[in-house]
Amino acid sequence: MSIETIISNMARSARAASVEMARCESRKKDAVLIKIADRLEAEGDRIQAENRKDLERGREMGLSDAMLDRLSIKPATITGMADGLREVADLEDPVGAVTKSWTRPNGLQVSRMRIPLGVIGIIYESRPNVTIDAAGLCFKAGNAVILRGGSEALHSNQALADVVGSVLRESGMPEKAIQVVPVRDREAVHLLLKQEEHIDLIIPRGGEGLIRFVVENSKIPVLKHYKGVCHVYVDEGADFQMAEKICFNAKVQRPGVCNALETLLVHETAAPAFLPPMADRFQAAGVELRGCEETRRILPRVAEATEADWEAEYLDLILAVKVVADMDEAIAHMTRYGSSHTETIVTSDYRRARRFVREVDASVVMVNASTRFNDGGQLGLGAEIGISTSKLHAFGPMGVEELTTTKFVVFGDGQIRE
Amino acid sequence: MSIETIISNMARSARAASVEMARCESRKKDAVLIKIADRLEAEGDRIQAENRKDLERGREMGLSDAMLDRLSIKPATITGMADGLREVADLEDPVGAVTKSWTRPNGLQVSRMRIPLGVIGIIYESRPNVTIDAAGLCFKAGNAVILRGGSEALHSNQALADVVGSVLRESGMPEKAIQVVPVRDREAVHLLLKQEEHIDLIIPRGGEGLIRFVVENSKIPVLKHYKGVCHVYVDEGADFQMAEKICFNAKVQRPGVCNALETLLVHETAAPAFLPPMADRFQAAGVELRGCEETRRILPRVAEATEADWEAEYLDLILAVKVVADMDEAIAHMTRYGSSHTETIVTSDYRRARRFVREVDASVVMVNASTRFNDGGQLGLGAEIGISTSKLHAFGPMGVEELTTTKFVVFGDGQIRE
Repeated sequence: MSIETIISNMARSARAASVEMARCESRKKDAVLIKIADRLEAEGDRIQAENRKDLERGREMGLSDAMLDRLSIKPATITGMADGLREVADLEDPVGAVTKSWTRPNGLQVSRMRIPLGVIGIIYESRPNVTIDAAGLCFKAGNAVILRGGSEALHSNQALADVVGSVLRESGMPEKAIQVVPVRDREAVHLLLKQEEHIDLIIPRGGEGLIRFVVENSKIPVLKHYKGVCHVYVDEGADFQMAEKICFNAKVQRPGVCNALETLLVHETAAPAFLPPMADRFQAAGVELRGCEETRRILPRVAEATEADWEAEYLDLILAVKVVADMDEAIAHMTRYGSSHTETIVTSDYRRARRFVREVDASVVMVNASTRFNDGGQLGLGAEIGISTSKLHAFGPMGVEELTTTKFVVFGDGQIRE
Repeated sequence: MSIETIISNMARSARAASVEMARCESRKKDAVLIKIADRLEAEGDRIQAENRKDLERGREMGLSDAMLDRLSIKPATITGMADGLREVADLEDPVGAVTKSWTRPNGLQVSRMRIPLGVIGIIYESRPNVTIDAAGLCFKAGNAVILRGGSEALHSNQALADVVGSVLRESGMPEKAIQVVPVRDREAVHLLLKQEEHIDLIIPRGGEGLIRFVVENSKIPVLKHYKGVCHVYVDEGADFQMAEKICFNAKVQRPGVCNALETLLVHETAAPAFLPPMADRFQAAGVELRGCEETRRILPRVAEATEADWEAEYLDLILAVKVVADMDEAIAHMTRYGSSHTETIVTSDYRRARRFVREVDASVVMVNASTRFNDGGQLGLGAEIGISTSKLHAFGPMGVEELTTTKFVVFGDGQIRE
């Protein structure tokens, strides 16, 4: 069979499965999720054996140790996937919920009811656990899903797909509700992105290169974020102890992720007292600082920040620092250089807190909290399928509810339009 | 200036205006809307004079009488636009509303706050009143808007833009919040659809040809519907009087619109008694019927429906009729031939009503009401910017709320992630 036929058959059968999925009761979906979790644990050895084929091939192809580590399925990886599915089973089912209801003057009762989106395509890089995490969330929300992982993880993803498929079959669920693309060729991604009749949404997960490739080539709506250039603004009169704790956590706790701090903005009256001890603490933790002119007047040993630093998503122990005249300058800097991801103010001033929240244009705007909380789990959405920094459909972390939409339901007694 | 420069300047300045718009208070926006309404009425003569230039040119170019009628601005058109703006001013402002709020175990207070989408592009055909209707809704929701009307309406749209611009200037609002593309070349549309950095959403309004052109060429998300192939299913045991009233209204009250009835489905036990008087009433109103074999057994003079009839959006006094064995066959027919627009059941059965509502995949699913109610105004959304039959972001009629999104707002007291 040609790749073209494989992909178009997958898309078509996913659409058919999605009709059945949309009608499936919550408790049935939850029972299947739990059964998949149990089966993953029971079949751990077989999954790891398939994973070793990927690892061997990866070594031959010269993948870095870091990439091999990401690719590797350890016993803890399997426990993690299984526990993740059990947590998703515990979430509230968004499908069928009536989000609003009202009655018109003519007696029509109008409401909005949550329904699944339909068919979702997930395109991701090497970590095979995404196969299970993403499939679980899409399934919970009543969607069919087509998963396209990295070509280096094909054996692992196929093994996971086999486990899922056997549980779906035994449970009398549509087997095509969860499918893994069974070929390595990159052409498969191209073809997937053209199935606009049968796929409703594409979610790419991975580096900026992958995401740009998907956006450039997709005829299907894409939810994604390119990068997280997150700021903390330390306001005049802020509690310095709190500010130091938040900035340190935001930068250092896990520097390689999208919600880590990349640029610190400090009010000019706060900078002389706040920056020296903050810089000491950063430098003790191995963080390299790059500062504006005023920062370097206060911290003479700090290197000079260039335009590229204000735009940088370092994903590393590097931090750009800028002293600003006031909150307006801080917000203007975020507007110009930020990525609409996460912006935080540390302040003690009620009016500026309110104004910051209203005026800053980012998917998550925070007062007195670490940027690291921009995460579906941390914000209470349950597991997350990703973060969106474009505004259509979803803005910010996306949980199971963001994998649904609403339809209008109208109950009448014979009303006609005059 | 080249068209390329014109369009990219418009997009860039719209983005800048959108920042100011997002911060604008409700009462200020409403005052401006009312002022524009008053000014439109005051400047009616000048607008009509400009409109006459379009009409003259249209006549020279051989536009049909129907098209000239759509293009023409009469005193009632101006009153209609002005009253529409006053109604939009009366709507609740969605911006700033907190749609949900909860507290995390660590004390973080998380909420979702409505914000404008940003910059919206509207691409439409000849009716110049869309310029004002669409601008009003986008403005109310705190967005900047770029309007591209039909080239045959350029003088009229420019005249309307002048009125709007002068009110924005006088009111101290960003003048670029509402802009009309000032050139006729179709190239302008192409260029507009490529401004993905500065335009967040495109809404095309017009015939299927225009909409397909926009979807094919846009790098920006598009909200649209291609067509409305709407069904009424008359169930076994339905109240025939109610069914007749609903079917007649759905087909005849305004056959040229997307929420008009196109195919009637009748349960086989209902058909023999229901169809003959229904057919008489339709035929008396000049409706041509095209039926399946069973329909033609009951109504021998009815022409034969072909596959093309089940797919047709007639927008005319023609109706396809099919007798079905049960509700499952009716739903299967809707799934296969429908356009996810509007589907109605006429029934007296509680369980089938519930099942129909749950299982039918359409933007508006109705029980015992005319399909003609799929309309933002009729369903209580206030004015509508259009109808979406794709599921992402909005599904069904789109009011002012659908021109917004939500951001997360997080209030903390120094929380960091462990």
